[in-house]
Amino acid sequence: MTLKSKLEERVAEREKWEIRRQYGAEGPNMQHLWVCACMDERLPVDEALGIRADTPVGGGDAHLFRNAGGIVTDDAIRSAMLTINFFGTTEIIILNHTGCGMLSANGNDLEAALRGKGIDVDNVPMDPSLPEMSLEKGAFAKWIGMMDDVDETCMATVDAFRNHPLIPDDITISGWIWETEFRRLRAPMKGAKGKERTQFNIDAMGVKGPQPPRWS
Amino acid sequence: MTLKSKLEERVAEREKWEIRRQYGAEGPNMQHLWVCACMDERLPVDEALGIRADTPVGGGDAHLFRNAGGIVTDDAIRSAMLTINFFGTTEIIILNHTGCGMLSANGNDLEAALRGKGIDVDNVPMDPSLPEMSLEKGAFAKWIGMMDDVDETCMATVDAFRNHPLIPDDITISGWIWETEFRRLRAPMKGAKGKERTQFNIDAMGVKGPQPPRWS
Amino acid sequence: MTLKSKLEERVAEREKWEIRRQYGAEGPNMQHLWVCACMDERLPVDEALGIRADTPVGGGDAHLFRNAGGIVTDDAIRSAMLTINFFGTTEIIILNHTGCGMLSANGNDLEAALRGKGIDVDNVPMDPSLPEMSLEKGAFAKWIGMMDDVDETCMATVDAFRNHPLIPDDITISGWIWETEFRRLRAPMKGAKGKERTQFNIDAMGVKGPQPPRWS
Amino acid sequence: MTLKSKLEERVAEREKWEIRRQYGAEGPNMQHLWVCACMDERLPVDEALGIRADTPVGGGDAHLFRNAGGIVTDDAIRSAMLTINFFGTTEIIILNHTGCGMLSANGNDLEAALRGKGIDVDNVPMDPSLPEMSLEKGAFAKWIGMMDDVDETCMATVDAFRNHPLIPDDITISGWIWETEFRRLRAPMKGAKGKERTQFNIDAMGVKGPQPPRWS
Amino acid sequence: MTLKSKLEERVAEREKWEIRRQYGAEGPNMQHLWVCACMDERLPVDEALGIRADTPVGGGDAHLFRNAGGIVTDDAIRSAMLTINFFGTTEIIILNHTGCGMLSANGNDLEAALRGKGIDVDNVPMDPSLPEMSLEKGAFAKWIGMMDDVDETCMATVDAFRNHPLIPDDITISGWIWETEFRRLRAPMKGAKGKERTQFNIDAMGVKGPQPPRWS
Amino acid sequence: MTLKSKLEERVAEREKWEIRRQYGAEGPNMQHLWVCACMDERLPVDEALGIRADTPVGGGDAHLFRNAGGIVTDDAIRSAMLTINFFGTTEIIILNHTGCGMLSANGNDLEAALRGKGIDVDNVPMDPSLPEMSLEKGAFAKWIGMMDDVDETCMATVDAFRNHPLIPDDITISGWIWETEFRRLRAPMKGAKGKERTQFNIDAMGVKGPQPPRWS
Amino acid sequence: MTLKSKLEERVAEREKWEIRRQYGAEGPNMQHLWVCACMDERLPVDEALGIRADTPVGGGDAHLFRNAGGIVTDDAIRSAMLTINFFGTTEIIILNHTGCGMLSANGNDLEAALRGKGIDVDNVPMDPSLPEMSLEKGAFAKWIGMMDDVDETCMATVDAFRNHPLIPDDITISGWIWETEFRRLRAPMKGAKGKERTQFNIDAMGVKGPQPPRWS
Amino acid sequence: MTLKSKLEERVAEREKWEIRRQYGAEGPNMQHLWVCACMDERLPVDEALGIRADTPVGGGDAHLFRNAGGIVTDDAIRSAMLTINFFGTTEIIILNHTGCGMLSANGNDLEAALRGKGIDVDNVPMDPSLPEMSLEKGAFAKWIGMMDDVDETCMATVDAFRNHPLIPDDITISGWIWETEFRRLRAPMKGAKGKERTQFNIDAMGVKGPQPPRWS
Repeated sequence: MTLKSKLEERVAEREKWEIRRQYGAEGPNMQHLWVCACMDERLPVDEALGIRADTPVGGGDAHLFRNAGGIVTDDAIRSAMLTINFFGTTEIIILNHTGCGMLSANGNDLEAALRGKGIDVDNVPMDPSLPEMSLEKGAFAKWIGMMDDVDETCMATVDAFRNHPLIPDDITISGWIWETEFRRLRAPMKGAKGKERTQFNIDAMGVKGPQPPRWS
Repeated sequence: MTLKSKLEERVAEREKWEIRRQYGAEGPNMQHLWVCACMDERLPVDEALGIRADTPVGGGDAHLFRNAGGIVTDDAIRSAMLTINFFGTTEIIILNHTGCGMLSANGNDLEAALRGKGIDVDNVPMDPSLPEMSLEKGAFAKWIGMMDDVDETCMATVDAFRNHPLIPDDITISGWIWETEFRRLRAPMKGAKGKERTQFNIDAMGVKGPQPPRWS
Repeated sequence: MTLKSKLEERVAEREKWEIRRQYGAEGPNMQHLWVCACMDERLPVDEALGIRADTPVGGGDAHLFRNAGGIVTDDAIRSAMLTINFFGTTEIIILNHTGCGMLSANGNDLEAALRGKGIDVDNVPMDPSLPEMSLEKGAFAKWIGMMDDVDETCMATVDAFRNHPLIPDDITISGWIWETEFRRLRAPMKGAKGKERTQFNIDAMGVKGPQPPRWS
Repeated sequence: MTLKSKLEERVAEREKWEIRRQYGAEGPNMQHLWVCACMDERLPVDEALGIRADTPVGGGDAHLFRNAGGIVTDDAIRSAMLTINFFGTTEIIILNHTGCGMLSANGNDLEAALRGKGIDVDNVPMDPSLPEMSLEKGAFAKWIGMMDDVDETCMATVDAFRNHPLIPDDITISGWIWETEFRRLRAPMKGAKGKERTQFNIDAMGVKGPQPPRWS
Repeated sequence: MTLKSKLEERVAEREKWEIRRQYGAEGPNMQHLWVCACMDERLPVDEALGIRADTPVGGGDAHLFRNAGGIVTDDAIRSAMLTINFFGTTEIIILNHTGCGMLSANGNDLEAALRGKGIDVDNVPMDPSLPEMSLEKGAFAKWIGMMDDVDETCMATVDAFRNHPLIPDDITISGWIWETEFRRLRAPMKGAKGKERTQFNIDAMGVKGPQPPRWS
Repeated sequence: MTLKSKLEERVAEREKWEIRRQYGAEGPNMQHLWVCACMDERLPVDEALGIRADTPVGGGDAHLFRNAGGIVTDDAIRSAMLTINFFGTTEIIILNHTGCGMLSANGNDLEAALRGKGIDVDNVPMDPSLPEMSLEKGAFAKWIGMMDDVDETCMATVDAFRNHPLIPDDITISGWIWETEFRRLRAPMKGAKGKERTQFNIDAMGVKGPQPPRWS
Repeated sequence: MTLKSKLEERVAEREKWEIRRQYGAEGPNMQHLWVCACMDERLPVDEALGIRADTPVGGGDAHLFRNAGGIVTDDAIRSAMLTINFFGTTEIIILNHTGCGMLSANGNDLEAALRGKGIDVDNVPMDPSLPEMSLEKGAFAKWIGMMDDVDETCMATVDAFRNHPLIPDDITISGWIWETEFRRLRAPMKGAKGKERTQFNIDAMGVKGPQPPRWS
Repeated sequence: MTLKSKLEERVAEREKWEIRRQYGAEGPNMQHLWVCACMDERLPVDEALGIRADTPVGGGDAHLFRNAGGIVTDDAIRSAMLTINFFGTTEIIILNHTGCGMLSANGNDLEAALRGKGIDVDNVPMDPSLPEMSLEKGAFAKWIGMMDDVDETCMATVDAFRNHPLIPDDITISGWIWETEFRRLRAPMKGAKGKERTQFNIDAMGVKGPQPPRWS
């Protein structure tokens, strides 16, 4: 085999990878996977799921969507709809995590804080590139997307994707919780909130609670 | 120093990291940075920007938002608004890339394809968790967010964030293009579209064009 | 310097290390530390405490006592008394762990099981090398040392060493819990038992509970 | 295979390892082994036996009991009884070492030293958590457990376990000596004491003896 | 096998490698390859072609000719003629690169600059060891070998070798462009010059153009 | 410092490296060096000189000219003239090697061989791109550039560059011999030819000579 | 600094190293050391002494003499005399080892064995290149050099060098024993023979002795 | 298999290695090899022959004899005789090297130098431990063992071993020269002396000769 032939093959292979999105459903990514995760810097998506989202020439395991909370939004629906209907993706993973910032306050308090800075939250353009989309008056606080219970939110998000008309019925969908404090993954479960270890730890640190225990 | 003291320090440090989101603006991530990037598996955000988005205990350089296209949406505004107003972020980076799937077709064709599958795109819930948000009839194709020129889109996205009332004026904002075929970063520039190397390569591959050049 | 001198120094240094126990309180180990830990194979003492118990010539951070449960016994008192009074140790660490086998049953059941094998537990020699030590009739089940709550046991063990006449008052003593399921260390705390994650996990595995949750 | 299935398997496997002690005799540790060793920081148990006592998720070769001397005590009997009768262990290894601190003095001298510190050794609670256990008056010095000949002690300890009613007859039991000065293992042997190299070395060092030999 | 036999084999193998040129066409180099490349320090020939030009005893993939520009000259013809006709080479690779110094000016300007230094360019010996070779008056600037379009030059060079009487017809010949700015190889193509990315970059740097774009 | 600033710096630095040839004499390569070496695959230029001819972004020690023999030709003069007069090079190294293919025959034999193949060596275009250059009839064999003594050739080549009008007088010039059989560098020396070790080795191998010596 | 200067320095340094023996006492080896050791393959001289006898260009810690036993012979005297009087060596190390083959039999038995093979040991040329050297009749068995006690032999060898007229008085001389079975060095000592561990081990192996001990 | 069995095997294997010399001809070393080499620190025996003379437990390729020059002496005969007749060795390698110190002077000069120091060379005990061995008057200079031609000496040494009555006829014997200046091995050859490269180098260095050549 001449070096000429080898170079032609190598160059063609690389160029095909570069423009593979033009081949549509033929091959989206290595695991035919779309992940919806929180944007938190303490959430290591690759480690949590045992994948490599992006790689050098030749691979990449997933299309990776991330927003504040890792919750369902119209953007999440849009992004999932595209990868599933046009780029061959067949599985959705929802990935939330404990200690999420979206748990640390409620939407009404945040709305009040923004008003306090002089922002007219009733009249901001939600998406400045899409004025055709509008939000009802009074829904701003809800739009912010705070949550009370990360396990409940994860399960509700799975249901939202399962029931959406833009997501075909044969897509595999599951939801998972990354325990930030333990660096490990678990399934979401009902009633986890009251038993969260995070609360104990705050006391143990003496941040809110009175003093560290005598035994250590 | 006793081992008791060392263990107390080490445990307290780790626990503080776990719940750091509860301290709000005090310290969001290592570079006080929010990145908006495309969800494509060929876009290596860490390599492109020279950061490590997430790390083990002690760091994490950025809050990382990713959607289809890396474009502005209401979810992008919401996520940026939260990290900037409540978690101390002071810089925004927009990261698009050449060869993006959002360049490979136009919204009308995609809308037609969905209708062909029997989906009533005029009546889908955009965000099933937020019925208060609605899209005007006929705007579905625009909502999908396809683009013609990734450089133009990147510059428009920078402008959208610069001018949005929920984003303070003193935030540093810049946009960048990852050249998928060259694995390198450059600034966006006007008129790049006609000169895109990607088009040549398609010909060179013989995918659309007639035949490889005689000289190799 | 001649090689002869270098070899003499090197040989003398090694020989002194070999017989360092003959120098008593002069230098027991690198951290002047005595650790009392459970004998469980899932309890990595070095990793948990950030020490290296034994090392090649020149070091070794601790005298390491281990028994079933990591609980106080007369042997634990004896071993601690020796290292503290005669070998210069100045700190005691008690190290227990979640999921301990000593939590999995109660002493009466175990005593019954042994009797069922035909063993006369009222008349076994506790320590065959020390007939001068005797156990009251009926105390066998208690002697086995099962526990109900590993946090309570850890705190009680710390107190037992603090109050024992053979342990001087100026010794630093602390107790710690290794969370087997999370591979991390924490201080013991009151009321941890009811909130143990272990119980959830058993259900999640479908070992005792009926079925895995629908959301993953 | 979907990622969902892979994650379910991985999580279940990890959770089973975490609570494996609840399955009793089913599988105690990788080598079904219980080791009784001295607590000395110069005794590297893993190196001496070629095992890895504890490991990350999935293994751990032995339950590791350690006390002052690595001798038989009621705690050693208790710990061995538990692992053998209830956790499936089938082999016992006794591991002593040369240069042991328990060889460096005799019990009467130590008892006198403690009395000299004002401790009433006749009335100390041997095990403060088990007042039902008592030691005859005058047996304190013997209880301390000093030894004259580490080879003889090792062989006697093997016999003590072989003959104890709580240890079944089909358990494999052996004893070994770690030569601290040579970093190697050997079987115990009669008459080793007088030929111990340690004694020569002390002289060679000039610690007790007069001067280094003329030939080096 | 005796060590004597092994040493004899080893020595003979090494000595044969040392004088392999004396065996002529029998085996020139590992890939039977001759490469003509530019002498630029930014052109990594081994990386570009995926070969190892020279290696320790036993290999070496190519005879590597390099001159200013990587262009055809009488020396290139001479060198190729030798390796092909007398040393068994069967393939020629021409390797040029973007950003070449030979593109940065034109021959007339360089000739003028040399005259400005007082050099009589019409009367310099082209090859001082070969006075039989002469250059027509006025051809000096052309002799310098500057180029306008590296792709055109590469293709012309391939043609020159294809048509030369000293190069047999059955030799495989191809030309390639190393993109210095992207560290990647591509085939030469017509019309590349106007679309060269290099020009944009110069503006982006602010070296010649006025200012960096506002969007980054 | 914002990430925006860091990215701007990094991109600008890379782009300047890519087009550095446009800055002329400002900075040619790291050692301001031009090397003239043989094209042989057994001549490892980097190892021989202790340089790294090409490197990733930021360096590259030399402009590397290579031809058959590593001898002076008009192309060598042209290439050296360019790098020295226009790109800031200040030193020339000539690198020849023992066992060179140019020593294995003489030009007349090669010319005869080519004629035997039907090639009209008196009428071949020496440089097809430069018809203005011509070779006197009968000089073909000399043009091939065979040599008798690599040390003599190296020294003559140094002299040719030292005396050429296109090479300024203040350029440092030296010549070196790489001993292929010993993988080491030495200065050229008069009278080396008759003492070449290569001849002995051929005999030792039994290739030409009769038989290996009896003593090994 | 030009590359020419660097190459000249490098070549000169290497050439000086190659012929350093011609400079005599100026610099023999890095530690000015001569070692006399046994030729046994179980005696790692470098490890035992913490030196590197030979190294690549630039070093080498010692002149290393080795013979059967590592004993004094006329060859040892000759070699030591040369390095000390003519090559600048200032220190002598004698290195013997336990388990030496020279301990495994006595000279008379060996002499008898040779005679049994038909060798006339009374009339063999001791050194065929030096007929001027002769051995008294009957001294053959002694000449073989077997020993009874390696510690005694080592000390005697030190004395022999200390007292020899060809060895100056100011030379540092010491002797050492490598314990083959423990991989460690010690000084020779009187009375070691009876306490040699090797004897025990033979019994323990069941090679000569009857059976392994019951305790392991 | 119990750990007890594994430990017994491992200990027995190690102990057998320690005393393997007691098993005589059964297994001397891994290559059944005896090497006679010069004691020079520039002669890397392992590298030269591609062996590992000594190794940790389990191996060791050769018995390694070294003296001044690597020449035949009565000690070399004695050592070879022992390993061949009693320890199973079947091959002899003689290893000399260029630039040997034994070439740098002649024995008469050295004898004179010693006399000049006041040493009565006619009456020194050749081997102080073997007064039965004696040297004829006037043979001292010859005894020193200086040589003129290392190739001739190597070949003569091979012959001396081949013809000695204590060395059986079926032993494989070969001689080799390590070229110190080239770090490579070759067979000895007649007439090498006059062509030694070492002489040139001395001149090149300017040590004896007048000045470095003009061409480097």
